[in-house]
Amino acid sequence: MKIFNSLGPNPRGLRMMLLEKGLTFPMERIDLLAAENRGAEYAARNPGAQLPSLETDSGMMISETVPIFEYIEDNHPNPPMIGSNAEEKGECRMWTRRIELKLTEHIYCAFRYGPGLEMYTPRQAVFPEMFEGLKGQVAVGLEWLDPLLADKQFLCGDRFTTADIVLYAALDFGQGIQIPAKLPSNVEAWFQRVNSRPSATASLDEEGTAGGFRGV
Amino acid sequence: MKIFNSLGPNPRGLRMMLLEKGLTFPMERIDLLAAENRGAEYAARNPGAQLPSLETDSGMMISETVPIFEYIEDNHPNPPMIGSNAEEKGECRMWTRRIELKLTEHIYCAFRYGPGLEMYTPRQAVFPEMFEGLKGQVAVGLEWLDPLLADKQFLCGDRFTTADIVLYAALDFGQGIQIPAKLPSNVEAWFQRVNSRPSATASLDEEGTAGGFRGV
Repeated sequence: MKIFNSLGPNPRGLRMMLLEKGLTFPMERIDLLAAENRGAEYAARNPGAQLPSLETDSGMMISETVPIFEYIEDNHPNPPMIGSNAEEKGECRMWTRRIELKLTEHIYCAFRYGPGLEMYTPRQAVFPEMFEGLKGQVAVGLEWLDPLLADKQFLCGDRFTTADIVLYAALDFGQGIQIPAKLPSNVEAWFQRVNSRPSATASLDEEGTAGGFRGV
Repeated sequence: MKIFNSLGPNPRGLRMMLLEKGLTFPMERIDLLAAENRGAEYAARNPGAQLPSLETDSGMMISETVPIFEYIEDNHPNPPMIGSNAEEKGECRMWTRRIELKLTEHIYCAFRYGPGLEMYTPRQAVFPEMFEGLKGQVAVGLEWLDPLLADKQFLCGDRFTTADIVLYAALDFGQGIQIPAKLPSNVEAWFQRVNSRPSATASLDEEGTAGGFRGV
């Protein structure tokens, strides 16, 4: 099994999960800034062309961060980071999907159409006219989430799960590009709880950033 | 176990999965057009306030269609609609996520900010200035997907999976609102293959539509 690793918040989230699980796998680094991920060799194996991805022992490529989390949990169930039964898994998957669709995808898309526009324009279709709307959607998502975190340690109550990692990796990256500029109070308290875990620091990239684009 | 059911493409997709699995569960219909899903009673149990949702035997609520698919497969693994092992599951989850993030979420969001704007304006924050960009993202997603379906029966090769249901439910709904107006050729051929399954017709809603908004 091998992991294709790079700059960026999603590979960072995967490293964080592996640290929490106490797992190490061989990693090959793909040069995102040089668009190696868009090159013929990598894109032929992962037509989504994004990072991270995972090559299984049989040579199959699984891309997309959340399915990679699931694949790792299926093969290394302990400690559980998604859940130890169908209900716990259901709770984590529900929160993950809410977080992705209401928040994190809008942050990433706003980055591509805003601060990252120059880098992305030669690489993919871009819609900079959506930038303000995307930031608006992020604000709406945070406003929705904040009261739901008032009485909870983590998204799934007392369990720290991959849903927290999905949100944390995006928000830590987002703080470097000021999307959002500020977190509401309960989300901020949750962020600090996750940020204090050893895996948060240990999963930063080689340059010590949460995604490689801090200050862009 | 009970399912909260309604108009709309996602509840339709869930009905389609249940038909393919040969499962029946008690269903309670929530009146989406009357915004019953935004009412205090339902939203207290499902703060996402969307449909469908599933109440487990222990009384827990799981919302979000794809996590519901997973919960049902965890409890009723045969016939497999996600996969019978970690690699097959990984393949289906990868395709599901690509499809959702590149296509179906943009279709649903374009509906809310376009043809469905009048209905959604009093219910949630809306960003109609994103409508054209969202349609553009749908076009980009279809262009990306089309060659990848050239040599395949379904998204995961010969296996018909919940990834196909996620895409089919959105595209059948989308055709009623002309988002997109036309499918590229391989996607169209795939669509007809899925559309010819008995579960496609049998999962239409009581009014015989793919989402309740045809012609809006």
